[in-house]
Amino acid sequence: MAKKIYKATVSSVEGIEVNSHVRDFDFTLDEPISSGGTNKGMNPVEALLSALGGCETMVAKSFAKSQGILLRNVKVEVQGEFDPDGYLGRNPDAKVGFSKLTSTFYIDADNTEEEVEKYIDFVTKHCPVHDTIENAPVFEDKVVPFE
Amino acid sequence: MAKKIYKATVSSVEGIEVNSHVRDFDFTLDEPISSGGTNKGMNPVEALLSALGGCETMVAKSFAKSQGILLRNVKVEVQGEFDPDGYLGRNPDAKVGFSKLTSTFYIDADNTEEEVEKYIDFVTKHCPVHDTIENAPVFEDKVVPFE
Repeated sequence: MAKKIYKATVSSVEGIEVNSHVRDFDFTLDEPISSGGTNKGMNPVEALLSALGGCETMVAKSFAKSQGILLRNVKVEVQGEFDPDGYLGRNPDAKVGFSKLTSTFYIDADNTEEEVEKYIDFVTKHCPVHDTIENAPVFEDKVVPFE
Repeated sequence: MAKKIYKATVSSVEGIEVNSHVRDFDFTLDEPISSGGTNKGMNPVEALLSALGGCETMVAKSFAKSQGILLRNVKVEVQGEFDPDGYLGRNPDAKVGFSKLTSTFYIDADNTEEEVEKYIDFVTKHCPVHDTIENAPVFEDKVVPFE
């Protein structure tokens, strides 16, 4: 199958508030007032956690039947550990982004604990967002005049 | 400064539609009808692109003044290259997630091309979402009973 290209266009709104436009959808991102924003939406690192947890939840639902899991319900809580000293440049040894991502899968299924554990291992390996973060893609950055 | 913990709780809504709850914000994620969803929102890989572009735009705005950039406007278009054969398990050599992420920075600034290029290099290095994807964090996955 041919490769697919996904696209998001992010525009500045006011202050540090931005809007990400994808197909017919708009997503407001901002920072809390304490971080210099106006708190109109979640911030980008929270959006990243949403993307990861959303992907894990969808993959868990999508593959359950074919993997022999009788899944009644699933909820995923994602936590990210962040060191502000890395982002703010106060500690060159601290990471700029998340140093740890923890996903807690809340599972209601008619299967053994072992079957569920094995299935969640399958889910994280088949989750495109998880793979993108765990196995870095190639990055390319271009700068062009504003249009 | 102490480490900060960010959190997103993702619940299944119906089919593969999910809701990510972060602080006071809710974010609907779904897939297009052609991919088995009901098209109520962007999908998780598009949310990941939004998080990356949103972070790059905010960082570009936040550090401009202190880096001597007279930034009038900024827009970031992020494209991700995805091979469905990797996700669907049809090609074990294909990546499950994005193989390439391209950010195009549209910049309106009262600076030389060289100054702007150097600044965007600074922005990508100081962007927490960019760093999280480029330099993989530690992952931990837990499975617990649904509550």
